Amino acid sequence: MVEGILFIVSAPSGAGKTSLVKALLERDAELSLSVSCTTRPVRPGERDGVHYHFLVQDQFRAELAEGAFLEHAEVFGNYYGTREADVRHCIASGRDLMLEIDWQGARQVRERFPAAVGVFVLPPSVQVLEQRLRGRGTDSDDVIARRMTQAHDEMRHYDEYDYLVVNDRFETALDALAAIVSAERQRLAHQRPRLASLLGQIASE
Amino acid sequence: MVEGILFIVSAPSGAGKTSLVKALLERDAELSLSVSCTTRPVRPGERDGVHYHFLVQDQFRAELAEGAFLEHAEVFGNYYGTREADVRHCIASGRDLMLEIDWQGARQVRERFPAAVGVFVLPPSVQVLEQRLRGRGTDSDDVIARRMTQAHDEMRHYDEYDYLVVNDRFETALDALAAIVSAERQRLAHQRPRLASLLGQIASE
Repeated sequence: MVEGILFIVSAPSGAGKTSLVKALLERDAELSLSVSCTTRPVRPGERDGVHYHFLVQDQFRAELAEGAFLEHAEVFGNYYGTREADVRHCIASGRDLMLEIDWQGARQVRERFPAAVGVFVLPPSVQVLEQRLRGRGTDSDDVIARRMTQAHDEMRHYDEYDYLVVNDRFETALDALAAIVSAERQRLAHQRPRLASLLGQIASE
Repeated sequence: MVEGILFIVSAPSGAGKTSLVKALLERDAELSLSVSCTTRPVRPGERDGVHYHFLVQDQFRAELAEGAFLEHAEVFGNYYGTREADVRHCIASGRDLMLEIDWQGARQVRERFPAAVGVFVLPPSVQVLEQRLRGRGTDSDDVIARRMTQAHDEMRHYDEYDYLVVNDRFETALDALAAIVSAERQRLAHQRPRLASLLGQIASE
């Protein structure tokens, strides 16, 4: 069995990462999205095992203590994390897997999966990002300012990624993201085991 | 001005490289094909400066002695070569450039352009390659056997390339080749100068 490819996608809030990844998954039947674990309450419409694995805090902490999580974070008192076993199981089965995580999670993942392919999604400009964050409507200037600071903290790590995709026009950014996934499948290291029979024929004659 | 990307495409005869590259160039207005120099006679329908730069042997040898050629080869008494100045001029103007050359030429190019991206096009199997070479019709078994030997000599160098594209279905292979070109344009090293203004904004705040 040929291993799948692990993709990491990061972006500042407001860059449109989640919509891009969702559209890509609809297009690409060979790509899966990693399901994270969380201790936050289930929201309406969410299903356990689909949107998240919903865990109680004790269980999360127990798995954390066992080193089960590839990456994890605490946000507003809730835990979020990706189980290493889930990722290994998926790529061992030959499926390509996408992780939507922040730069800190990405660093943790790269330590254990050095072959992971990193994609950073950027807004076309800082002004556009701020407009998008304001566009949501009801938030105070303080909240917007805090989000912009967070966005900057995230964006400052763009150079830890293999690819930069600018989300100016959605369809263009989606095509770029799809091209990256497709191109990575043609890489020598990935093709070598997939084409073992053909390459064996070539080497032997 | 942001430099263009240099792509090298190699393949054994019969893999369909030339048709793929032609179709890709029709699709992708930002990509050019490098025009080689040759001393072989002009064939009907060929135009100087479009299909080749047609040179007399003395001129080719003089340029060769001056080190003007990035790569060159002699085939059946005729010279073929790519002028380094043509390549530098094209990518300096920001255009992406594709070179269709064999593994030996590819090695020579990589020495002077280490950032060049190499793509090797493979047939789905050695049997299919032989069928395609036979399919041309009128050639003797000896000629076919010699072509197969040459094809093997070329294919044995697949692992000197960044990407392997299998040309089983033409449209699938074309999509794969187009994805590689598109993905390389999103690479950090290529995006960094293109996005200098945005990335400067991010770094400064």
